[in-house]
Amino acid sequence: MNQSFESISWQEDHLVILDQTQLPLREIYSDVNTIGQVWDAIKKLKVRGAPAIGIAAAYGMYLGVRELESKNFTSFNVELQRWAEYLKSSRPTAVNLSWALERIDQTVYANKEKPLDEIKEIILDTAKTIHDEDKRTCKKIGEHGAELIHHDFNILTHCNTGGLATGAYGTALSVVNEAHQQEKNIHVWVGETRPLMQGSRLTAWELKQEEIPFKLITDASAGSLINRGKVDIVIVGADRVTANGDTANKIGTYPLAVLAQENDIPFYVALPLSTFDLNTENGDEIEIEEREGEEITHFANSQLTPKKTDAYNPAFDVTPHKYITGFITEKGIIEPDFKKNIKKLF
Amino acid sequence: MNQSFESISWQEDHLVILDQTQLPLREIYSDVNTIGQVWDAIKKLKVRGAPAIGIAAAYGMYLGVRELESKNFTSFNVELQRWAEYLKSSRPTAVNLSWALERIDQTVYANKEKPLDEIKEIILDTAKTIHDEDKRTCKKIGEHGAELIHHDFNILTHCNTGGLATGAYGTALSVVNEAHQQEKNIHVWVGETRPLMQGSRLTAWELKQEEIPFKLITDASAGSLINRGKVDIVIVGADRVTANGDTANKIGTYPLAVLAQENDIPFYVALPLSTFDLNTENGDEIEIEEREGEEITHFANSQLTPKKTDAYNPAFDVTPHKYITGFITEKGIIEPDFKKNIKKLF
Repeated sequence: MNQSFESISWQEDHLVILDQTQLPLREIYSDVNTIGQVWDAIKKLKVRGAPAIGIAAAYGMYLGVRELESKNFTSFNVELQRWAEYLKSSRPTAVNLSWALERIDQTVYANKEKPLDEIKEIILDTAKTIHDEDKRTCKKIGEHGAELIHHDFNILTHCNTGGLATGAYGTALSVVNEAHQQEKNIHVWVGETRPLMQGSRLTAWELKQEEIPFKLITDASAGSLINRGKVDIVIVGADRVTANGDTANKIGTYPLAVLAQENDIPFYVALPLSTFDLNTENGDEIEIEEREGEEITHFANSQLTPKKTDAYNPAFDVTPHKYITGFITEKGIIEPDFKKNIKKLF
Repeated sequence: MNQSFESISWQEDHLVILDQTQLPLREIYSDVNTIGQVWDAIKKLKVRGAPAIGIAAAYGMYLGVRELESKNFTSFNVELQRWAEYLKSSRPTAVNLSWALERIDQTVYANKEKPLDEIKEIILDTAKTIHDEDKRTCKKIGEHGAELIHHDFNILTHCNTGGLATGAYGTALSVVNEAHQQEKNIHVWVGETRPLMQGSRLTAWELKQEEIPFKLITDASAGSLINRGKVDIVIVGADRVTANGDTANKIGTYPLAVLAQENDIPFYVALPLSTFDLNTENGDEIEIEEREGEEITHFANSQLTPKKTDAYNPAFDVTPHKYITGFITEKGIIEPDFKKNIKKLF
């Protein structure tokens, strides 16, 4: 399995990112030379997708520390912590961002006796490792998931869960990619994913790159397609999965799960094990993040609604585990009883 | 119950319509003096909504025939049929359009012995009657439906089913309006209704006019709201209801019905009896109209997707009757067994 684009890559002494705000109409690769540019790229959604943000932040830490002229570890570490806080402020809710920064912190601490120049290189190596691990994890997710995809399957997906959102390959889209590589003659229904259109803009772009047949639909069309037998399997990604399997994901995921179950269609969630949050018991404990109403009342700077229209714009919903057929992870597919079987993999 | 705007009105010698393509940002009332202008208004969606189209077409017939200088009924009638075919071509699938033209044809035929000038006035009177009847019908729908709305209810609706789409008051929105007039302290969730945004643009505008509290949501957010107990009742309109109660309506209606049932929330369809199609047995016989993919791949002339992206854009879906709690009509509320109880009202 290959991927025809690199959303994040390290080139000699700097980071190169594919600017997702310009997709799908323009493919612009931007050089990122400073930690400030990394912060800006995350803040402005040039890089998005939890794993991709974590990877960019890890490289960002190296870009930050390599200019430091600290004389000893203590002062070096003070600067390091400041850079970490700075990067976290770019997307405070992104779990993988904190996770990547924590991992760098631990690695630095484990090597604190070494010369500072060497520690700087260790940070870059850690970033590369995080990146490589994510690629391998996503590839594994694709391989396990592809076992569920049969010849001539119509796959329905939501939002963007591809190589743009991860180190490479993606999660739900990695399954799609792998099945396509295996020449299973698949067709994908791409939900446009209101309000930010990550389906229309990004998933459509990725599927075009990989030459995988697809059709775009509105989010509201998915139910009818499922009911009319035009969908064989639904596969989505996840933002957070609790200990019992309840799944937070992009708004619109819960309806797909209910509609799939009502029509006896399998509904799978593809994700790395790092997205499981075993400290949270169930979905009731997940807070629903609300975004700006302007994302709905306006589109491309033009107003859709009467002036001063109130909007409610939740960013994700929670799918109770009873609607989920299974989880596709890098260690294989988890089937119910989820509470028991999720724990086994940790 | 009053309505603070008139979407269609007859003023002395011409029709005045509120141009729906300019809403919600501009309220432009256009004079319509010729049948060609009526055709154009329907074609360009300045007038939309099945009942409103029927009413506009009926007035359009009068605007067409009043200039005719036929010498006898036979030649007059030839012109009349030509005008009817012409108007039908503006929205071939709109049931109420054919229905209104058929009614005018029958009235003309019943009065064919009368002088042509008198027949012309009879056509205008028929148009006014169709308009008045629709207003009364919609008012009755609102009154019956309001019995279902309790104090502090959160009502979820989809698409535009208000005074803009009918002679006045609307169908599902007539229920909302009436409950508001009864000071029931309601709040409405308005689904934006992709792809043409009739929720954001039109329903939001109507609710603003009537000062009814509401919040706009994406279609994909409705499921989560229902699941979290934030919706007390779902009320939608209908394009066509078959003899057993299966309901064709704007795409996205079927998911709302399934989600309502899954969460024990009542799901009602509000409609005039003229929308029932007793010649069609069930929903399997309803053909799903497909609209241009460009409505999804583009927005306000800007491209959302990669070039040459295929899209599938069904205009409506079919909700099987088992998900429907009841139908709100001008003759009262129809409960299951629908097949039996619908027939009783005809």
